[in-house]
Amino acid sequence: MTPQPVPLSPPVRRADRARQVADVLRQQIHGGAFDHALPAESELAAEFTVSRNTIRDSLALLRDEGLIDRAPKVGTHVAQRKYEHGLDALRGLKETLRGHGEVRNEVRVATHVTPPPAVARRLHLSPGEQAVYIERLRYLGDLPLSLDLTYLVPDIGDPVIARDLESNDVFALIEQIAGGPLGSADLVLEAITADPHSAAALQMPEGGALLLLERLTRLEDGRPVDLEYIRLRGDRITMRGSLVRPSETSDWRLI
Amino acid sequence: MTPQPVPLSPPVRRADRARQVADVLRQQIHGGAFDHALPAESELAAEFTVSRNTIRDSLALLRDEGLIDRAPKVGTHVAQRKYEHGLDALRGLKETLRGHGEVRNEVRVATHVTPPPAVARRLHLSPGEQAVYIERLRYLGDLPLSLDLTYLVPDIGDPVIARDLESNDVFALIEQIAGGPLGSADLVLEAITADPHSAAALQMPEGGALLLLERLTRLEDGRPVDLEYIRLRGDRITMRGSLVRPSETSDWRLI
Repeated sequence: MTPQPVPLSPPVRRADRARQVADVLRQQIHGGAFDHALPAESELAAEFTVSRNTIRDSLALLRDEGLIDRAPKVGTHVAQRKYEHGLDALRGLKETLRGHGEVRNEVRVATHVTPPPAVARRLHLSPGEQAVYIERLRYLGDLPLSLDLTYLVPDIGDPVIARDLESNDVFALIEQIAGGPLGSADLVLEAITADPHSAAALQMPEGGALLLLERLTRLEDGRPVDLEYIRLRGDRITMRGSLVRPSETSDWRLI
Repeated sequence: MTPQPVPLSPPVRRADRARQVADVLRQQIHGGAFDHALPAESELAAEFTVSRNTIRDSLALLRDEGLIDRAPKVGTHVAQRKYEHGLDALRGLKETLRGHGEVRNEVRVATHVTPPPAVARRLHLSPGEQAVYIERLRYLGDLPLSLDLTYLVPDIGDPVIARDLESNDVFALIEQIAGGPLGSADLVLEAITADPHSAAALQMPEGGALLLLERLTRLEDGRPVDLEYIRLRGDRITMRGSLVRPSETSDWRLI
C-alpha cells in the first residue's frame, strides 16, 4: 500500500492504440453519433491524435466485428446499428424493439417434453413431469436476432402454445395467462462463439460472437415458470443497464 | 391473436438436440454440479433421453467453447470453472473474486492523456483537458481474466495512479480518494470475438469470445469520474444478476 511513483508510460504499440480508438468509436456508432458514414480517416486521425495507420487498424477491428463496411472511394459506413436490450426490465424482445421494426418469430418447435432433470429441478417439476418446450428463431425485419429455447411449466405452457407464438412475446403471453405481472428473474450472461448449426440458423458467420443468456423467470408469488436459453447475435444486440445505489439502503438497483 | 392449434413438433434434428443438451450441461458445469469429471456418455444419454451420438455432439460444442476437455480413456473433465461477475453491484474484480484466488494487475500503462473528444464529453472534461489513462491486464492466479482500459478525471486519477495499482481495484481506490461510496454506473455489455492482439494479451485463442463491458461510473453526487472498456475472457467469466420488481414501485431492482 506504499504510494508508488507514477509508472512511466511505455511506448504504446500501434495495436494498443488501435484498440483504444476502436473502443471509443464502437460506442459512438452504437449511440448514433454518425449518420451512416464515418468521418474520413484524416479527420478521425486528428480527432484521436493518432496516425492514419492507427485509424486504419482500428477501423479494421470494427469491420471484423461486422460493425462497419469499408470500400475504396466509398469510404466507411455503419454496416448495422446494434439494438439495445435492456438489462433493466423483464421485457420481451418485441416490446423492447417497439419502434425499430416488426419482431416476427419463426416457431421451430412447440411441443411437450420430459425435461432433463436439471431443468425439472429449476422449474420445481416432479421427476418425469412434462414441460412445454418452444424453440423460436426471432427476426427483426428480415434478419434473425436470436434463437430462443424455452421450457415452461405445463399449467402456463399449455395455454401459451395455444396462442399466436409468431407475433407475441412469451413474457406477454405468460402475463395474460397468469393474470398479473412477472415477479423476478435470474440472469446469467456469457459470450460464446457460434457453432456451425447455430450460426446457420442465425444467418451469421460461423465462429461469430454470441451473447448467451440463461434466464429463469418467476411469477409474482415466486414460482419459477419459464427457463430460457437465448442466443443473441453479438453483432446485432447490446445489453444495457444502469446501476444505482439507493441512498436509503445498501442494495443496488438496476434502472 | 386468434388462438392457433398447437403446432406439431417437427422432427428435431440431432444438432438441435445437441444444442439443447449443451445449454443445460453448461449451466450445470457453472453451478459446480460435477466434481471435475462429467458422467459417462451412457449415463448422460439416459439422463437426457437422447442418443450417445447426441451426447457426443453436445460435449463437442462445450469442448469447442473451452469449457471441458475430452480424451479417450480419461473421459470428460471440466477444463475450467467460470467465475461469476455480479451485474448487481459496483464491485471491483478483486472484491468479486475474493475466496477464489489472488487477483493481480499487470499495469501496462498509467499516464496522462488528452482523451478523445467523445471520452472527454462523457467525463464532463473541457476540450483539451487531460485525463488519466490506465491499462491493466488482470490475472486470477496465473491466467489473465480481463484487459481493462480506464479513463479517470484528473482530480481522482492523479491520486489513483500514485497508489498501488497492482493489487488494488480502481473502484476501491476511487472510494478511498473520494471519501465515500460510488453512486451509479451505466453499463453496456456485448459479445465480440478476440482480435489477434487482444487474444495474445489475454493468452486465449484468436477469435475466441469476449464479453466487452463499457462502464461509466459516477460518484454519489452524480459526477462521472471513471470510463472503462473491459474485455473479459468469455471462457472464464459469466455475468450474473437477478431482477425483481419491488411491489411498491414499477421499478426493477437488480439484487
